[in-house]
Amino acid sequence: MNAPLPDAHLLNAPRRPLPEAALAALRERFGERCSTAAAVREQHGRDESPFPVTPPDAVVFCDSTEDVAAAVAIAAAHRVPVIPYGTGSSLEGHLLAVQGGISVDVSRMTAIVRLNPEDLTVTVQAGVTREQLNREIRDSGLFFPIDPGANASLGGMAATRASGTNAVRYGTMRENVLGLTVVTASGEVIRTGTRAKKSSAGYDLTRLFVGSEGTLGVITEVTLRLFPLPEAVSAAICHFPSIDAAVNTTIQLTQVGVPIARCELLDTNAVRFVNLQSKLGLREQPMLLMEFHGSEAGVKEQAELVQAIASELGGEDFEWASTPEARTRLWAARHKAYFAGMQANPGSRTVTTDTCVPISRLAEILNVSVAEADASGLPFYIVGHVGDGNFHLAYLVKEGDADQRALAERLSHQMVQRAIALEGTCTGEHGIGLHKMGFLVDEAGAGAVALMRSVKLALDPDNIMNPGKIFSV
Amino acid sequence: MNAPLPDAHLLNAPRRPLPEAALAALRERFGERCSTAAAVREQHGRDESPFPVTPPDAVVFCDSTEDVAAAVAIAAAHRVPVIPYGTGSSLEGHLLAVQGGISVDVSRMTAIVRLNPEDLTVTVQAGVTREQLNREIRDSGLFFPIDPGANASLGGMAATRASGTNAVRYGTMRENVLGLTVVTASGEVIRTGTRAKKSSAGYDLTRLFVGSEGTLGVITEVTLRLFPLPEAVSAAICHFPSIDAAVNTTIQLTQVGVPIARCELLDTNAVRFVNLQSKLGLREQPMLLMEFHGSEAGVKEQAELVQAIASELGGEDFEWASTPEARTRLWAARHKAYFAGMQANPGSRTVTTDTCVPISRLAEILNVSVAEADASGLPFYIVGHVGDGNFHLAYLVKEGDADQRALAERLSHQMVQRAIALEGTCTGEHGIGLHKMGFLVDEAGAGAVALMRSVKLALDPDNIMNPGKIFSV
Repeated sequence: MNAPLPDAHLLNAPRRPLPEAALAALRERFGERCSTAAAVREQHGRDESPFPVTPPDAVVFCDSTEDVAAAVAIAAAHRVPVIPYGTGSSLEGHLLAVQGGISVDVSRMTAIVRLNPEDLTVTVQAGVTREQLNREIRDSGLFFPIDPGANASLGGMAATRASGTNAVRYGTMRENVLGLTVVTASGEVIRTGTRAKKSSAGYDLTRLFVGSEGTLGVITEVTLRLFPLPEAVSAAICHFPSIDAAVNTTIQLTQVGVPIARCELLDTNAVRFVNLQSKLGLREQPMLLMEFHGSEAGVKEQAELVQAIASELGGEDFEWASTPEARTRLWAARHKAYFAGMQANPGSRTVTTDTCVPISRLAEILNVSVAEADASGLPFYIVGHVGDGNFHLAYLVKEGDADQRALAERLSHQMVQRAIALEGTCTGEHGIGLHKMGFLVDEAGAGAVALMRSVKLALDPDNIMNPGKIFSV
Repeated sequence: MNAPLPDAHLLNAPRRPLPEAALAALRERFGERCSTAAAVREQHGRDESPFPVTPPDAVVFCDSTEDVAAAVAIAAAHRVPVIPYGTGSSLEGHLLAVQGGISVDVSRMTAIVRLNPEDLTVTVQAGVTREQLNREIRDSGLFFPIDPGANASLGGMAATRASGTNAVRYGTMRENVLGLTVVTASGEVIRTGTRAKKSSAGYDLTRLFVGSEGTLGVITEVTLRLFPLPEAVSAAICHFPSIDAAVNTTIQLTQVGVPIARCELLDTNAVRFVNLQSKLGLREQPMLLMEFHGSEAGVKEQAELVQAIASELGGEDFEWASTPEARTRLWAARHKAYFAGMQANPGSRTVTTDTCVPISRLAEILNVSVAEADASGLPFYIVGHVGDGNFHLAYLVKEGDADQRALAERLSHQMVQRAIALEGTCTGEHGIGLHKMGFLVDEAGAGAVALMRSVKLALDPDNIMNPGKIFSV
């Protein structure tokens, strides 16, 4: 089992200097949209991970696929790194310019390129965020369900194979991206997939780029599956005497095949932090936050079944929130758990795990991990997409406190060991980034990682696409 | 647009001779499980495609991943081709030994390695067929929904990214394979994926091998998602005055989001052939054959909604088949359409298309294509997984009649052109194989195909894994 690597190792790779000629070419092509201002570079050299800021040498703001292709072509000609940048909400250090290079910012690429409501598909530029998308398509009666919490860009969500709440019913980015426009490492533009719902035409390049974390190319457009807005939506919370009881309820729901749309666990600490921030007055004990989608009758039927199962397993106080306002309030609170945790512990940064296990092993890994976290003395909380077997145990460590940070990393490492032993994964949805490179080898095996590396070198022989992420080359 | 290639071009690639030393090594390792008998070789050098038999030089019958690894290691040492063989039900020439080599037969690898009912997962050896799987897990209350018609092996289904009926609700092999054991081109064994429902850990090797048609490695084990057997199942047929009316009904169902489990179109010709073979006495006009899965109330609700939509669009005579026996009879008839077509036209072979388009374009492509097929004078029929926008127009050509074959290929080619222009794919579920290599370039573009080729050469530098399929290297 590979030990967690110290930040110095991850961040102090030899930087590749940006030649004057490359900068001149960028300035010529992008004018004021190319920046080397310290503030801009710093903003692009950080994300929500606990790593220190590691700025790129230059930032270019792209408006189109052609812009991205031009930037990558310049980088390729000079063999300097390219780091795609969307909204900066990565939790795993994806955006840090560990070898220097050019941050290719696609956040201005916010066009809904084409909505085809009759086919339930939409093509968007990579900088469109999920909230923008859902706002702009609302009148079509359709929605895009994948919701990782952060208002991430859809390009970034594709690049990290994001999921979050709703995935238990609608799947992840893996299932919901139909096709991509990608700028490859040579600056060439390719398209993957079609607008057809399925295809057996050659290698699944779409799925190869989804989750490749910018290491194979820059995603500039994404074609997505949409879903009809459900006729009826209902949300409920249910309190449980223990995490075990909440998890066992989830396991039963899954096994019975209830098509629940969201099934989120909050432990007592998470409820406490959320209460502090959002003044929801939730009872401070483990809780499931659930949502049901379907016809009026279908939602009612699901809810009754869930209520029956939950009651049998010790669930108390099933509370309904059927008005959109009440639902929004609950989900907003859930999504703010990450910031609520930091706010309740001023001056802290979050070290979060992202393990995902077969659902039958969920109670087991949670119990051991909670005992361990309790014993550590570190503040922590748990939120989990438990319908998928995925949860985040987030440690709150004092910024700059190396001992706390090291302790959190060690606990996180033990959790990953446990998840892998239970046939799970070190990352359900955040990606490998900088943080989990050692874990990837533990999980996939050296042979599989070597194979990934072969693919990488075949597509990016000079290793310019987001180098130093996923694995070292 | 690339013209269809003549058989001679596809089949007469330079054969790579099997060195005596390679054969000796195979015989030493496999004993009587290595065969060079003409009958065995011929059986392994054909499939359900219209191409002439093209036998391998030797066939080895494998019982385990280790056997496969040993066979591939011998092939790799001598740089001779390896062609994985499951049940021989390919429709696209995947199994033909166009460059000679070793057919690696996994049909004896029929172990259910591990069933985890509590997680809704199962791991099987590659030779397990979907019917065997569903028979063996029946007592668990679970089932594996993907049903391409043929009783294909699950290894072969993964290799071609198969789907078929049920995919409209449950997805294809792309969505339902959690992980694989693969023997790579060097004879190494790797595992991809985990038993967790989702993961963001590195490149999606699982999806890279799913649909790779044996060109990147030999799949020896497959871990699959299972589903709870629905509480209620109901099937119905509905006749329509035209294909248009049937397709428009399908489009509306999709747009409303009815979670229909199967939605199959049969044109008048298909109904006629099925009647001839299965004596079902179905009214000979276009027909939708549908299935609903859910709770008792849910199925009823879905069925009522569908009936209302169908009636509005000209559907007549909604007939229910709620007993398992009646349903089985209907689906058996549907699955036999392929053989019914050939039986009704003795001495014929089938040239079938497999296009898949965005659902809003389905009526358009069907109307033009039917007019064209009618004008051709060739016998033909249509069956379609129309809920996914995928259909098969099957031409029945006299075996050995080069003119009929050429005409059918030309019409098929025109259909593919049309599908690609409508943002669809040349193959929804059968794969590229030999048949559609030119189409792949038309569909994906030379850049994307070049990228696939780079991946292939990175993973199989000597081009020994099923060479001459998907693209030429």
